[in-house]
Amino acid sequence: MDEPLNLVLFSGTDDKLQAAAVMTAGAAALGKPVNVFLQYWALDAFRADRIAHDHGLAPEAGEDGRLAVQALRAAGQASWAETLRQAKELGGVDIQACSLSMDLLHLNPTDLDPLVDGVEGVTAFYLNAGEGQVVFI
Amino acid sequence: MDEPLNLVLFSGTDDKLQAAAVMTAGAAALGKPVNVFLQYWALDAFRADRIAHDHGLAPEAGEDGRLAVQALRAAGQASWAETLRQAKELGGVDIQACSLSMDLLHLNPTDLDPLVDGVEGVTAFYLNAGEGQVVFI
Amino acid sequence: MDEPLNLVLFSGTDDKLQAAAVMTAGAAALGKPVNVFLQYWALDAFRADRIAHDHGLAPEAGEDGRLAVQALRAAGQASWAETLRQAKELGGVDIQACSLSMDLLHLNPTDLDPLVDGVEGVTAFYLNAGEGQVVFI
Repeated sequence: MDEPLNLVLFSGTDDKLQAAAVMTAGAAALGKPVNVFLQYWALDAFRADRIAHDHGLAPEAGEDGRLAVQALRAAGQASWAETLRQAKELGGVDIQACSLSMDLLHLNPTDLDPLVDGVEGVTAFYLNAGEGQVVFI
Repeated sequence: MDEPLNLVLFSGTDDKLQAAAVMTAGAAALGKPVNVFLQYWALDAFRADRIAHDHGLAPEAGEDGRLAVQALRAAGQASWAETLRQAKELGGVDIQACSLSMDLLHLNPTDLDPLVDGVEGVTAFYLNAGEGQVVFI
Repeated sequence: MDEPLNLVLFSGTDDKLQAAAVMTAGAAALGKPVNVFLQYWALDAFRADRIAHDHGLAPEAGEDGRLAVQALRAAGQASWAETLRQAKELGGVDIQACSLSMDLLHLNPTDLDPLVDGVEGVTAFYLNAGEGQVVFI
């Protein structure tokens, strides 16, 4: 369990980000380092002015899925951003924005929520990943 | 090849579930243990009263993709559920429902198809995964 | 870094294929072998008569996302196909079509762009993957 878990987040819908946050928190609770690399629409969801917004669900969720997710929220379920904040407090979680996606979306580091620790390229991502698992979400 | 292959199934469309079933069956045929962890819309697709239904395709499939998939079905292609049943007969395939997604969808274990072996949390998933590959589908 | 990186490409939208191409190019630049396995809608995007077409974006991209991607293209960003061609010139990148998906889409090897090196089944994919990472995109 010494090698890090490396999550490449591509999708920016609330259901996939919640799944990613739970995987991050679970690994952090087990003492495993986690590197998160934000691309495309996932990066967009981490904009400081949008992170608390509704980011929708995967199209397949349908109306039943939407209602189920809304009911959990109303019952006080932590958002994915809050789950990630708690995971970072456990330590070992590093969240980096992909530099190419920063260019695509015309973002500056100051546009991002403080959850994001920095900006890096794909080469740096691989070097930090070492021999650990790479998971694309 | 001693470490298990660990598939986190999130999507519940028939094309992604078919891809997951083929990956499971291929690994099982090579004698590799496979742990499948069902979340969100994939878990919904394993409900006993829905597993045999049409679960749609990814939006990008388009009309041509839908016709291609329907033609294969009409020609007798095994469904993803049938492919998973055959893979389980080879041995080494364990399918678990994510406890958080069970709560989200208000499901009880008796609501699920017998393909599902049990319910577990993300920590148990990681502990069973060991150093094996983690693949998110 | 001796084990290969193994990418299973399922999605055929330009944003996911671009993400996959960047991951491939980054690994190749670090001297890591990369095996790419094309399934379903990703395979469809590698048809010789379609590879240069617009393959759309994930539904969540929205209108803002579409405009951002179009602006980068207009500014001369290399397409994912071009990025993969450059990665192959570095060496160590092998792209195989999944035989089951070839059947689904009624394709012959001559229907595919020369970027694709051959056709194989899932067993061959696993044997080539060895103990390397498996990433599903």
